[in-house]
Amino acid sequence: MNYPNKKKSFEKVISTSKLGMTLETDINLTNTYYLEKKIAVIHKKPTPVQVVKVSYPSRNKAKIVEAYYKTPSTTDYNGIYKGYYIDFDCKETNQKTSLPLANIHKHQQQHLKDVYNQGGIPFLIVHFKRHQKYFLMPYLSLKPYFDQEIKRQSIPFDDFVKKGYEIPFGLMPRLDYLKSIDQMLSSESHDDK
Amino acid sequence: MNYPNKKKSFEKVISTSKLGMTLETDINLTNTYYLEKKIAVIHKKPTPVQVVKVSYPSRNKAKIVEAYYKTPSTTDYNGIYKGYYIDFDCKETNQKTSLPLANIHKHQQQHLKDVYNQGGIPFLIVHFKRHQKYFLMPYLSLKPYFDQEIKRQSIPFDDFVKKGYEIPFGLMPRLDYLKSIDQMLSSESHDDK
Repeated sequence: MNYPNKKKSFEKVISTSKLGMTLETDINLTNTYYLEKKIAVIHKKPTPVQVVKVSYPSRNKAKIVEAYYKTPSTTDYNGIYKGYYIDFDCKETNQKTSLPLANIHKHQQQHLKDVYNQGGIPFLIVHFKRHQKYFLMPYLSLKPYFDQEIKRQSIPFDDFVKKGYEIPFGLMPRLDYLKSIDQMLSSESHDDK
Repeated sequence: MNYPNKKKSFEKVISTSKLGMTLETDINLTNTYYLEKKIAVIHKKPTPVQVVKVSYPSRNKAKIVEAYYKTPSTTDYNGIYKGYYIDFDCKETNQKTSLPLANIHKHQQQHLKDVYNQGGIPFLIVHFKRHQKYFLMPYLSLKPYFDQEIKRQSIPFDDFVKKGYEIPFGLMPRLDYLKSIDQMLSSESHDDK
């Protein structure tokens, strides 16, 4: 009964169910790790909800009985790392060759630009599921697409490989994207990127 | 019918209903002003809601039918100003002589501390309604109370007067608290505060 293949497949079940569940879960766990280790203070913003009706079944408890999800006006994540203001959103795609621009709302594009102009560090974390690869993509490499200087409706996978920073998937933390920020900052200060 | 007193009381109705409605509204309008004038990028986080049940009356519209308000784990406001990471919460009180410490949740106190240790600018904006006064109070002046080095259950009004920065109420913007930040930064760099 102890076929080596059986064991391998069991391990695979663990790795795909327990690890890499969703990009959001992985980033949240990474942020908890950063917070506990006092590396950075980065939180996900709550999902915005438009509350229409609230009832009060007991005196001190408000029960929301009618509400709708709203489109966020900014990105999902922000915080501080070594004095730097960090601001980003996460995107997952099943596409193999590119990330559709439609995945990044116009007001998110504007927000990333505003953050850049105030001296912050805006970026995207993108998961190409079919490549099983994660990239940190700095705003400046996204800007030509946002501003339609490059007239395309999607950002090619190859551009992420060339201009982004690949984030290896690990156990603790899951996605150590601040290491990519360190790389980015040191390459900017040496002017070789 | 045109008694001068009548007119005065009408003006008073305008000033108290249209201006200074709530501290949150005033801060939000101020932040919109900062954003439009490209002075800073500071947003209020959405109120966190625990969604329990969602129904789908039509195919593309999710209707939340059971949800509850959650206690926020951080402060309500953060963003970036001239490269600085800004993080704060707003508090209103009807108390005349002090702000009760109970108004500032333990996890908010911890969050302000974490932000300070990462090199950000954490503070509170406090509205003493009965004095009609607004103060920006830096984290370092709150810390002795948070850490119970000063063994009190409330922060005296006089402390806000001495160690805080009064924010004058205006029309555009309503509460120009970034001017207080400028004052704070320049007094810190001259070591006279």
